[in-house]
Amino acid sequence: MGRPRTPLLDRRRIGAAALKLADEQGTLSIPALARSLGVAPSALYHHVSGRDEIIALMREELTLTAGLRPARSRPWEQALADWARSYRDAFAAHPGAVPLLAVAPLAEPFMHAMYEHVAGLLLDAGFVETHVRPAITALESFILGSALDLVAPSVMLPGVDRETAPRLSAVLERVPVDHDRAERAFEFGLNALLTGFRALLDDQSADGARGAE
Amino acid sequence: MGRPRTPLLDRRRIGAAALKLADEQGTLSIPALARSLGVAPSALYHHVSGRDEIIALMREELTLTAGLRPARSRPWEQALADWARSYRDAFAAHPGAVPLLAVAPLAEPFMHAMYEHVAGLLLDAGFVETHVRPAITALESFILGSALDLVAPSVMLPGVDRETAPRLSAVLERVPVDHDRAERAFEFGLNALLTGFRALLDDQSADGARGAE
Repeated sequence: MGRPRTPLLDRRRIGAAALKLADEQGTLSIPALARSLGVAPSALYHHVSGRDEIIALMREELTLTAGLRPARSRPWEQALADWARSYRDAFAAHPGAVPLLAVAPLAEPFMHAMYEHVAGLLLDAGFVETHVRPAITALESFILGSALDLVAPSVMLPGVDRETAPRLSAVLERVPVDHDRAERAFEFGLNALLTGFRALLDDQSADGARGAE
Repeated sequence: MGRPRTPLLDRRRIGAAALKLADEQGTLSIPALARSLGVAPSALYHHVSGRDEIIALMREELTLTAGLRPARSRPWEQALADWARSYRDAFAAHPGAVPLLAVAPLAEPFMHAMYEHVAGLLLDAGFVETHVRPAITALESFILGSALDLVAPSVMLPGVDRETAPRLSAVLERVPVDHDRAERAFEFGLNALLTGFRALLDDQSADGARGAE
């Protein structure tokens, strides 16, 4: 209504359209992206150098929308948990794009800035340098998987038979079937992961104390 | 070479072809599946009732290939870790199918049999019934995310600048860039998750002991 049929392209619009397309189709092709924006592929190339840059714009859109930067002032577990929740929510809004974004290298300075914050958080908490990278990656894997689970139906195991699967049936009967299923699993896993991280830190301190004796 | 152009359909072949297609295209359409099998869509419907059944066949193919059933004889942490590793490897072979399979309800008896085993493992370990479902889901989310990470490049953070991201640079310099990056992150996270699960069990026992005093 009153908007031009072919609005002016800008990088933010390209990122948003690419995210929508990847989310719906599970893949990203430049001709399809150009079509969805109502422009010729050549017009896209006035704004982006190619596929890698489009993926960077998708990530920028996702990250800027969610404001994915952990707070530094809180206890590290809480800051990391808050970051994990925002991160999961951002990806849950675009589940189809998860595999694409999960395997594309993160070359963008704004992503490096986010990881700089997270790395600082873990180093300040006392993690040794060699543990920081695996800890972040493990947490991200859990976050991405949880984002997919958040868009799954609340009844993921229909028709379990009490005769052939009695223990599974008993377990399922104890858990309410509602929209909080994925939320509870996420919080349960996040708590377990952070407890595991904390235990590792405590072991390190104990080792350090023994080493100093 | 010598094979018929239109081989006979069977359910196992349909599952394998659907898995390949979803993996490559991120989605599954019946016309595309029929094309990839060299048959008319109507021929497919002689074997399957529709999309849900095809997804069940994909899952059967993945699960049967990987033999996803945890051992019951070992300590539960080890049995669960072995199951998680096989599960991750099975999904890592078909990363594009992950979002599709992650959100499709699991109505198949062979999947219920697998979850019956895992639920039994956790119940025997001492988990309370209400924790079993969230524990399995959290572990699965971590597994699915890790499967995606396993197919990501070993250099996921190229070009980090030492001036603007000094702590991230320091962390990255301490970690070798090789194919084991994702493997190390998975084992780190799996260990943290299982440590967190173990801590929860210990807390339960402590609560139980206090309750009995």
